[in-house]
Amino acid sequence: MSRFWNPALAKLAPYVPGEQPRLSKLIKLNTNENPFGPSPHVVKALQAAANDSLRLYPDPHSHALAQAIGAYHGVDTSEVFIGNGSDEVLAHVFLGLLKHERPVLFPDITYSFYPVYCGLYDMAYHEVPVSAGMEIRVEDYAQPCGGIILPNPNAPTGIGLASAQIEALLVSQPDVVVVVDEAYVDFGGESVVPLVARYPNLLVVRTLSKSRSLAGLRVGYAIGHQDLIVGLERVKNCFNSYPIDRLAQAGALASFEDEAYFQHTRQEVMRLRAGLVASLEQRGFEVLPSQANFIFARHPRHDAAQLAARLRERSVIVRHFRHPRIDQFLRISVGKEEECAALVTALTDIVGPAGA
Amino acid sequence: MSRFWNPALAKLAPYVPGEQPRLSKLIKLNTNENPFGPSPHVVKALQAAANDSLRLYPDPHSHALAQAIGAYHGVDTSEVFIGNGSDEVLAHVFLGLLKHERPVLFPDITYSFYPVYCGLYDMAYHEVPVSAGMEIRVEDYAQPCGGIILPNPNAPTGIGLASAQIEALLVSQPDVVVVVDEAYVDFGGESVVPLVARYPNLLVVRTLSKSRSLAGLRVGYAIGHQDLIVGLERVKNCFNSYPIDRLAQAGALASFEDEAYFQHTRQEVMRLRAGLVASLEQRGFEVLPSQANFIFARHPRHDAAQLAARLRERSVIVRHFRHPRIDQFLRISVGKEEECAALVTALTDIVGPAGA
Repeated sequence: MSRFWNPALAKLAPYVPGEQPRLSKLIKLNTNENPFGPSPHVVKALQAAANDSLRLYPDPHSHALAQAIGAYHGVDTSEVFIGNGSDEVLAHVFLGLLKHERPVLFPDITYSFYPVYCGLYDMAYHEVPVSAGMEIRVEDYAQPCGGIILPNPNAPTGIGLASAQIEALLVSQPDVVVVVDEAYVDFGGESVVPLVARYPNLLVVRTLSKSRSLAGLRVGYAIGHQDLIVGLERVKNCFNSYPIDRLAQAGALASFEDEAYFQHTRQEVMRLRAGLVASLEQRGFEVLPSQANFIFARHPRHDAAQLAARLRERSVIVRHFRHPRIDQFLRISVGKEEECAALVTALTDIVGPAGA
Repeated sequence: MSRFWNPALAKLAPYVPGEQPRLSKLIKLNTNENPFGPSPHVVKALQAAANDSLRLYPDPHSHALAQAIGAYHGVDTSEVFIGNGSDEVLAHVFLGLLKHERPVLFPDITYSFYPVYCGLYDMAYHEVPVSAGMEIRVEDYAQPCGGIILPNPNAPTGIGLASAQIEALLVSQPDVVVVVDEAYVDFGGESVVPLVARYPNLLVVRTLSKSRSLAGLRVGYAIGHQDLIVGLERVKNCFNSYPIDRLAQAGALASFEDEAYFQHTRQEVMRLRAGLVASLEQRGFEVLPSQANFIFARHPRHDAAQLAARLRERSVIVRHFRHPRIDQFLRISVGKEEECAALVTALTDIVGPAGA
């Protein structure tokens, strides 16, 4: 703590992202990146956009990209808000739409950035426990609050909610904003974007980092009633007029122009996930049902922190959270065929072979 | 105002950036972009970075870029903070270092984003009037406050302060952070980066948008004592772990590797500015002494708003601020030779020829 700091900084507990190792020899299954690169069409668009026009500011409204996103989801451009990764979108959502007198509700087991935003913006929050089976029970959210945020599928469990469950929540809480964070929804979840037209209190947050293989480009967005979008624009325009650079706008736009690649790679990830789940279950792991590009698994006879350490000795990094209810789980991103195979080989080495 | 908004949003007055017209036929001298494109070395680096690795998150600390910036300025990497454009850096600076019980001080005529940040973060501020000649008088800042921020050279006046004046301010205010926003300093101003080693309360903010021709890439940074940088990192890590995308990190790094291009283009801008000032003075304009890549000028017999409108009819856009003390001025960015010539032709058409 420095005397030059805003005194509130001392109390903040910043988010700790998964390790981004500088050694490239590691098999990196710790931050839920897509095992496949972005579409070649995106790469071409980025290379074309790397030109003299970079001397000019980007479109502050990312208008062309918002149009493409709106067309893709069947909503109006005025129902789209774009940010520098969905983390920035979420930050503006917490300040602009979820900060009210009453606490915001989110699961006790969820994306660990949510309480961090609450700290940053001095917001009250209440963590709603997931069930013993790690499931979100939407009926538990029928309580007085200032807003609700849920990932669907949830992270780090990977467990999804049906659209009908979220609709029940929207009906029970018409006076607060319900944010559904669909970072991983393209890997088998059920999107609630179609509900936006009927529920003015629904905001859906998306990212291009996972299913569109663009974690390195930093583009996320939100879809909701234009009243919500206008509120987010207000916050954004008090923070940074030009959050999305010219290359990110061009690359993100191109991603929505290559539907075939998107469909192919997300199906491949789901296929690889099924194989990984089977291999782990054969080796005694309990694996939660995943609709994401990662799995959340524990072994009844092996401590998770030790497993993570022993995997790392074998050049495989996975994510382990030191959180009371989940400290016996590992979160493992779905890698390429050969990365999954290397993980299974390493785990076999540690916990024994299939059926043992 | 929507009932779903944080009630504080209603009071916010967002920043309004200069127009980014979608028509490319306009001569755009309104947002202080560099008339020259980025270095060819930067373009090559960007094209090379547009590859499969975009599936991976960027380095959350932009370590390689921070090293390059540190080496360039002769400071340690731990004394460098990087953000998504200097506007994001400034946002974190306001919240993290300038928010205290006492008001932050800045000039009444200055970058109009400063009071916007204060609104966003619910901060008290006090505007210190510049002199009748539009000069910042550092002695006016020797009053109780929570922090000070000054652009050097100031915007939109273009008038610079000597390093010795800022040092006097640092000496007189050892207990608060003094932020010097050097967005335009490379066009003839005197940087106070060398003072960072001696003043732990000095933070210098820089951007690649102006002198490095990369407004479209969104990279800014701050240099200061590591206590200040640690505070800024705290805020950043509660907001967005990965603010700088892979391409922006690669392109910005490459910019610091082409010193010759940087020196050549900034000298050219200064040469073009001198010509523009002479042409305007010959046509009866009063032009403030500029150390920036823009000039701030008024004509004793022509209303500035009308001049701006008539220039626009002639396809030239400049910036006019409807602010009491400066509403008779135009801010005109220094363009390429032919753009400056087109502006002068248009102005001649409106106010008459040289010496008339």
